[in-house]
Amino acid sequence: MKRLSILGATGSIGHSVRTLLADAPGLYEVEAVAGGRDVAALAETARALNARFAAIADPAAGRALAEALAGSGIASGAGPSALIEAAQREADVVVSAIVGVAGLAPTVAAFAPGRRIALANKECLVAAGAFFMAEAARQGTEILPVDSEHNAIFQALEAGPRKAVEKITLTASGGPFRLKSREEIARALPKDALKHPNWSMGAKITIDSATLMNKGLELIEAMHLFALPPERFDAVVHPESVVHGLVSFVDGSVTAGLAMPDMCVPIAHCLAFPDRIVTSCRRLDLVALGRLSFEAPDEARFPALALARAAMAADGMAATILNAANEVAVAAYLEGRIGFYGITDTVAATLDRINGGPAPASVADAMEADAQARRAAAVLLPKFSAKAS
Amino acid sequence: MKRLSILGATGSIGHSVRTLLADAPGLYEVEAVAGGRDVAALAETARALNARFAAIADPAAGRALAEALAGSGIASGAGPSALIEAAQREADVVVSAIVGVAGLAPTVAAFAPGRRIALANKECLVAAGAFFMAEAARQGTEILPVDSEHNAIFQALEAGPRKAVEKITLTASGGPFRLKSREEIARALPKDALKHPNWSMGAKITIDSATLMNKGLELIEAMHLFALPPERFDAVVHPESVVHGLVSFVDGSVTAGLAMPDMCVPIAHCLAFPDRIVTSCRRLDLVALGRLSFEAPDEARFPALALARAAMAADGMAATILNAANEVAVAAYLEGRIGFYGITDTVAATLDRINGGPAPASVADAMEADAQARRAAAVLLPKFSAKAS
Repeated sequence: MKRLSILGATGSIGHSVRTLLADAPGLYEVEAVAGGRDVAALAETARALNARFAAIADPAAGRALAEALAGSGIASGAGPSALIEAAQREADVVVSAIVGVAGLAPTVAAFAPGRRIALANKECLVAAGAFFMAEAARQGTEILPVDSEHNAIFQALEAGPRKAVEKITLTASGGPFRLKSREEIARALPKDALKHPNWSMGAKITIDSATLMNKGLELIEAMHLFALPPERFDAVVHPESVVHGLVSFVDGSVTAGLAMPDMCVPIAHCLAFPDRIVTSCRRLDLVALGRLSFEAPDEARFPALALARAAMAADGMAATILNAANEVAVAAYLEGRIGFYGITDTVAATLDRINGGPAPASVADAMEADAQARRAAAVLLPKFSAKAS
Repeated sequence: MKRLSILGATGSIGHSVRTLLADAPGLYEVEAVAGGRDVAALAETARALNARFAAIADPAAGRALAEALAGSGIASGAGPSALIEAAQREADVVVSAIVGVAGLAPTVAAFAPGRRIALANKECLVAAGAFFMAEAARQGTEILPVDSEHNAIFQALEAGPRKAVEKITLTASGGPFRLKSREEIARALPKDALKHPNWSMGAKITIDSATLMNKGLELIEAMHLFALPPERFDAVVHPESVVHGLVSFVDGSVTAGLAMPDMCVPIAHCLAFPDRIVTSCRRLDLVALGRLSFEAPDEARFPALALARAAMAADGMAATILNAANEVAVAAYLEGRIGFYGITDTVAATLDRINGGPAPASVADAMEADAQARRAAAVLLPKFSAKAS
């Protein structure tokens, strides 16, 4: 029986983990669950999973959570220290699915020798990748990527030694604007950008998919996860979203990871690694699909990719800035305050304004760089107001 | 420096090995080379590769080979015992590329603890698979498949434990008759069947590609190589021939092996395994390809697949018979003695006539079953004379 803790248990990743655990009775026991603000959902999850401990991020929600868990025997806590406790309790696998830079501290707190982290939080790698991976290695903790692209690459990489990797390719669906002109994209309203062709995800990541910033962030994540130089990473548009990642070796062999576009599959892989569990996740059927297509991303219509590549090459805190500025800009776009290209314009302007700095060497460094970039982006936003685009 | 012997050094696989060795100076030394009848080609190969020993299968060609190697310091021999000596001399990797059932005895003779066999000969697995794999395991010899489909699957299998494999899929180009009607196929002349869309190969295997018997034989090979029950193996038609094989795991993950359709790639993988060598093999470019397509094989137009599946399920010597009868029938088709469907009709009739028997338990068993099936097929052939089809 493997012991599991789930940080971000009430979100969509947490929901998929619950479904998988129900499919694999007797294989896992749940130590801790942590959530953000939704007391009722967290309490229900903790009871359903028979967890030993539940932590809520909102410091004011401690009493409500304790009341909602009354009679269950499940201990609880609230605020940052409770999240850290949830992360540090004894477990074989900790699912890190808290959204945003808030997920960084609890995830690092979860590091322990022999432990595995099923990493769904992007910011650990984008905002603090070098520190995060070095610290995980120092503590003997293995990072398993939950993101379908990185998970596919992780699996495909098993076919050969890391030093024999010539290229790593992440696929991108191309998002809802793949076939639109730059002029059409410039006029796109949030409701258009929120129509993702293959995946159902939150609003922020769906907009990132429309700008292709999501793929840019994933290239940055991949560089840290797989410890290869930036020029070895590439993105290709693959609208069917079933080939998630490819590894090209120096001999001409290529291995690829495929699956239906459903988080069920990579989460199951991370929970069971190095074993596998039987799931009821949807199965890939290439004959039913008939065709898979591939095209080069258009960096003129989607400038986010070039911004991310520049951040990868610049190293230092560029990726932290890029990520924070993007989050501020996407929120402004969703509120109708800037146009679609205002998102990448804001990111580029923020990167110009802050102009580098050393890579974060601690959680605090990353949080501070993130906050600094957010302040700078907020100041720059009005330059890209909706009317201007 | 790895020590290499090449059985079948003058054929197309041998030629590819030579090209790869030239690309990887200082990594390999060649112990022995063996060929069939072409003295001049074998002597030239032995000199070019600076081999220590050369063996020619034709017992009458011993003196000519010795003369052709005069002054080179390369020892030589002729006939079956010389092939066995070539196979048994000290080497880390033995490339088994002698064509046909004649390759079985030297390949088994090459088994030795810690040695790896880069297996390009089909008959070892089709005609004597159970014995061959058991004997390799007993002697601590690892079998690396050179065939691109099996090599792709071998690589894709690294992503998870064998017991977690749900399905193994081999792809087939579909051959030259993929889009032809049964009536058109029935009238097809050898010159039509010899036009393979993606691979340049010998006449026998090109006809096997047109009947899809090649894929049937590969399913049988895969069953023995990867030690899973017959129902876990599947074939899918993929006309672009760049995804060579796929492994579906019980959790819904699929890993695949891809490469340009060029034997350079799987041979390089086998020579270097578990390392990789840098090659100048053509690189896969999915964007340049644009599209990959997949369709179910039509077992009505291509009855060879069902014959192979039946042989897999029947076990015993059915696959040995199927392979031998097919070889006789393909030769007859190439000589214009039977029509295209006469090939599979002959195979089916031979399987009916011989009606089973235990799986070959030795090289001699397999050779005897093979010879018996050839005699039976030859007797049955006239029933399917070209006029009848």
